[in-house]
Amino acid sequence: MLNCAETAAILRGWDKILVLSHASPDGDTLGSACALIRGLRALGKRAEFRCADPIAPKFSYLFRGLVFDESAWEDPSFHVMTVDVADAALLGDVRENYESRIELAIDHHGVHRPFTENRWVEADSAATAELIWLLLKELGVAPDRAMADDIYTGISTDTGCLRYRNATSRTYRLAAETLDAGADAGEINRLMWECKSRAQIEAEKLALDSMEFFCGGSCAMIRMPLSLREKAGAQESDLEGVASLPRQVEGVLLGVTLKEKEDGSVKVSVRANPPADAAALCQRFGGGGHTGAAGCSFPGCAMEEAAARMKAACEEYLKGIGSL
Amino acid sequence: MLNCAETAAILRGWDKILVLSHASPDGDTLGSACALIRGLRALGKRAEFRCADPIAPKFSYLFRGLVFDESAWEDPSFHVMTVDVADAALLGDVRENYESRIELAIDHHGVHRPFTENRWVEADSAATAELIWLLLKELGVAPDRAMADDIYTGISTDTGCLRYRNATSRTYRLAAETLDAGADAGEINRLMWECKSRAQIEAEKLALDSMEFFCGGSCAMIRMPLSLREKAGAQESDLEGVASLPRQVEGVLLGVTLKEKEDGSVKVSVRANPPADAAALCQRFGGGGHTGAAGCSFPGCAMEEAAARMKAACEEYLKGIGSL
Repeated sequence: MLNCAETAAILRGWDKILVLSHASPDGDTLGSACALIRGLRALGKRAEFRCADPIAPKFSYLFRGLVFDESAWEDPSFHVMTVDVADAALLGDVRENYESRIELAIDHHGVHRPFTENRWVEADSAATAELIWLLLKELGVAPDRAMADDIYTGISTDTGCLRYRNATSRTYRLAAETLDAGADAGEINRLMWECKSRAQIEAEKLALDSMEFFCGGSCAMIRMPLSLREKAGAQESDLEGVASLPRQVEGVLLGVTLKEKEDGSVKVSVRANPPADAAALCQRFGGGGHTGAAGCSFPGCAMEEAAARMKAACEEYLKGIGSL
Repeated sequence: MLNCAETAAILRGWDKILVLSHASPDGDTLGSACALIRGLRALGKRAEFRCADPIAPKFSYLFRGLVFDESAWEDPSFHVMTVDVADAALLGDVRENYESRIELAIDHHGVHRPFTENRWVEADSAATAELIWLLLKELGVAPDRAMADDIYTGISTDTGCLRYRNATSRTYRLAAETLDAGADAGEINRLMWECKSRAQIEAEKLALDSMEFFCGGSCAMIRMPLSLREKAGAQESDLEGVASLPRQVEGVLLGVTLKEKEDGSVKVSVRANPPADAAALCQRFGGGGHTGAAGCSFPGCAMEEAAARMKAACEEYLKGIGSL
């Protein structure tokens, strides 16, 4: 396991670096990648980017001013590294291209499954973006406003805007540094947290209508069949916030959201309040994540069956930890 | 106008202090009062508390371990001061008792209307709690965990958990200090932001159903008649979060929430996105607040009339600032 200085030393030795984000990219993996690429370029290196999935329009500001050269994707002279990737499987469709070539991983997931020798993984870090900010400082990069926006976004998106338990006093201090470096925190938070399409609001209303409680109110479950999306006129990205709703109900320890996917699978998002651990529950089904937020997937499974399996698992889990 | 050191000097000279919060107390006025009282008591002084209105149960943890002596309320040997009170009128039903006796005011509202010579008002401060934390340090108080919880609560509630534009890098740094002093930020934020009663969720759904758009989508309005509360089985405190909903819709500059009150008035909450200014709009009707969040009231007014007046005012206002 590397520390910040050792990670910086490796990067100093490289001239061409391809930075990979995880599939279904979020603000942390994208903000981390963009800030790091900006920093490496400021040091005169060639730094490029790849992600298996398209970038949601709301994240486009993270890439402001960055132009990428796709010829780097297949260029073997590039050193390949990952940011915020907890497992090689999370690279999605580009896993095959790169898994054997990854020489460095920077991550903050407690459930990180190593896929390269050289890795800097700090599970106490609320966001990978925290580590990237420290790394940029270690590398002697003078942070500009774009880097600050990228890093602040990573911190904000992975902490629910400093709201969750994973935010430490270091998180607050590093966020303060990004503000001093020009991060437009107010606008970023508006875009990330305060800006919903009408379709998104409609989808949330429909999702709330489906909410049911079990285990004496300790668990709440929301179902989002494919039809909900149509009914609300919503896109996939409009449904992202829904998973946080069931946990918000007073007394709920496990908030479960089931989302029917077009490939016939059911994607499960779990949000937990202490003492429940979302990652521990999802690991039973081959999933993972953090204590407060985790997920798993039921391939080729009907909604009703997925619901029944999750209900049984929640009950068993809560009994197991003495909370039921 | 005083600064922090001058405010501390005044307090050092007093032995008995009655701290007043504003009516309809929020996390900032209560957290500020409780932390200050703890600090003054730690210095061996008598410090007491009064607020015109009852304290919502969700704020009871702010008062953990504090016992108050109501005999101080009418004791003329007590020096009277206010925290987070922007206007003497906001003292509510205790205004008459104290207005002429107030010797010190600590506040952060840009629209502060002076009611005492000795005042420390910093409009750049996101919360009065920030000022109280600085004051406690100036007074040499060693902060304990209860003070840290009180201050963190004030900061979190007045910044939407660091989300709004009013949070500066100082806000983040002071919040970091409260975490280092033991503030249980994760739990506080869960209680303040992530914990809704089922009635509250029901009320929000009903409120969203009433949402209408005008000024080409630049304005959104929600109506909460008295009947909504009954229908949702909700209490007054369950309705607090509703005012933030209309502003969250993409493209909305002014989000207006109308709440019918039992006394026949309509309470208006306005939330604004730049370049709109909620306080400027509400001041037209004798109200006030901050740029992002403000309010006003229409006494003896039917819901429909209040809606019509607000719609006209919004349109006129947006035209005035060139946003329509």
